[in-house]
Amino acid sequence: MRYRDAGVDIARADAIKQSIAEAVRSTWGTAVRPLERGFAGVMEWPAGSRLVAATMDGVGTKLHLAQAAGRVADAAADLVYHGANDLLVHGARPLAFLDYIAQSELDPETVLAAIEGLSRACREVGAALLGGETAEMPDTYRPGVVDVAGCMLGVIAGARALDGSAVRAGDRLVGLASSGLHTNGYSLARRVLAKSGFALGDPLPGGGARIGDALLGPHRWYGPALLPALEAGRVRALAHVTGGGIAGNLERVLPAGARARVEASRWPLPPLFRWLIAAGEIPLEDARKAFNLGIGMIAVTAPADTAALVRELSRAGETCFEIGVVESGEHGVEWVDSP
Amino acid sequence: MRYRDAGVDIARADAIKQSIAEAVRSTWGTAVRPLERGFAGVMEWPAGSRLVAATMDGVGTKLHLAQAAGRVADAAADLVYHGANDLLVHGARPLAFLDYIAQSELDPETVLAAIEGLSRACREVGAALLGGETAEMPDTYRPGVVDVAGCMLGVIAGARALDGSAVRAGDRLVGLASSGLHTNGYSLARRVLAKSGFALGDPLPGGGARIGDALLGPHRWYGPALLPALEAGRVRALAHVTGGGIAGNLERVLPAGARARVEASRWPLPPLFRWLIAAGEIPLEDARKAFNLGIGMIAVTAPADTAALVRELSRAGETCFEIGVVESGEHGVEWVDSP
Repeated sequence: MRYRDAGVDIARADAIKQSIAEAVRSTWGTAVRPLERGFAGVMEWPAGSRLVAATMDGVGTKLHLAQAAGRVADAAADLVYHGANDLLVHGARPLAFLDYIAQSELDPETVLAAIEGLSRACREVGAALLGGETAEMPDTYRPGVVDVAGCMLGVIAGARALDGSAVRAGDRLVGLASSGLHTNGYSLARRVLAKSGFALGDPLPGGGARIGDALLGPHRWYGPALLPALEAGRVRALAHVTGGGIAGNLERVLPAGARARVEASRWPLPPLFRWLIAAGEIPLEDARKAFNLGIGMIAVTAPADTAALVRELSRAGETCFEIGVVESGEHGVEWVDSP
Repeated sequence: MRYRDAGVDIARADAIKQSIAEAVRSTWGTAVRPLERGFAGVMEWPAGSRLVAATMDGVGTKLHLAQAAGRVADAAADLVYHGANDLLVHGARPLAFLDYIAQSELDPETVLAAIEGLSRACREVGAALLGGETAEMPDTYRPGVVDVAGCMLGVIAGARALDGSAVRAGDRLVGLASSGLHTNGYSLARRVLAKSGFALGDPLPGGGARIGDALLGPHRWYGPALLPALEAGRVRALAHVTGGGIAGNLERVLPAGARARVEASRWPLPPLFRWLIAAGEIPLEDARKAFNLGIGMIAVTAPADTAALVRELSRAGETCFEIGVVESGEHGVEWVDSP
């Protein structure tokens, strides 16, 4: 990272460098091989594991709201939770994360905030922050904004990745509550906010929080509840509800000849989504594609395992709803408004 | 990727989607587990390998020149070569690559070009293009430009990563010729180009190429020559000459109490760097920090192995120069202009 010549506070710059190094090292555990001034990060591969899983994501436009609210760290953390949940879908545990932070002109405080958020989330999900790149590109980025992207690596212990092939007609859909928009639908949400005339500090109509806090709710990490359930064999498939909404992501794990019925009446639409739909006059169909509508992850489970799964997930702190079933039929997802 | 509603050619859009899928699949070999509509990429971990290496990089401002010249694919390929060389420094072979492609408004042709370039380079270095993310962020990116970043994963076969700890006083520095600026120094080079009044199509003074072609020369991938030399144990350390130049990167692999003398007279300064320095009136000290000056990788080798290493590398198609020595002394790198 280059520091601007004009007006830079050298003592603060040194403190930032040290804070960044400490934040990164706090994620390393014993598996990372520290390489002083390395060209790449190196760590131990868990003995006996045969499959590597990896995913790349960006925070997206949530960053704009987060920057406005001085919460870049939280948005960066969400990127880690997002990637960790994507791996979870295939039965993988997080191993390492690498970040890309880019600005028109690098602001060391913003970079530090991002790395502190990434590090905190990496510790939570059990990933080492193994590497990263900061880029300063004035002709690419608009002044003042920041983009944060990153790659999450994970490990699958067994010989097979979890996919939708185990799903059968009759299986139940268990929805795990989200904690807000997670990291999708922010372009639309920001348009609604602008159109509504509300400010981030205004109270959310119908809910206790301020709009800004509700919009910036963290991307929930479902590993602590779902990893034990995966190991116990009680989950036939997972769908992480990101861009494309419940239907768009659920259909990604349905095998050919299987369709899902999702009953919208089975869970309460959280106040944030109620307000966005009303203030934005968003057609329900569009809202269902843009937003998770309160369900951040869907577990597909055999009928006989459903009650035990719901009990386990609830004990682990998740709010769960049985939101639908899998049936034989044309591949796809059908919304049912009243049962 | 979202396609713009206005004026989109559906047939072309479908063809692009198919071309992207084919390009990605062309890199998969037999190790990747194809997951239809997966949330992450999954592939086999090479049996018995105990260390994973990973690095994140961006193409940087080379992309601006590449876009102006219609060569986004080549610049994207350079990102792969860059990451692969960074892994090589630690003795790792490429395994997988994941990309992040972001624009103000996604242009499918630009995304296709980037992915075709990434795929071609992935095939060359032996990495699977395991995943990727495209992001459309009009409030973050300037209109028309593209940013491409990516994460390279690799595998170290043995129990230790190559680092500088094996380097001894008396060791020789073998420089491997670069094929241009590689991916560093483009902000400065673009300023020189603008100041010089030259156009990309003008001939490079003192060299046969056009300036644009010389500036967009590929980032050379040194694996085919260096991987056998690494396995034969003839390399004590490697330094990939990127941002910071020869000295900045060489000192990263020197142990405490070791310093290197680099003799600038040992290799010819390529015409591109001669012209940049002259046209930009760049002080030599600055040029040495910004540019690789014709040396893209440095191998540190025992005196007794030097002749064999140079012979091997030359036979593998590299142009090599013995550019200096390691001595005992204060940690650092010293430039010697005349021997």
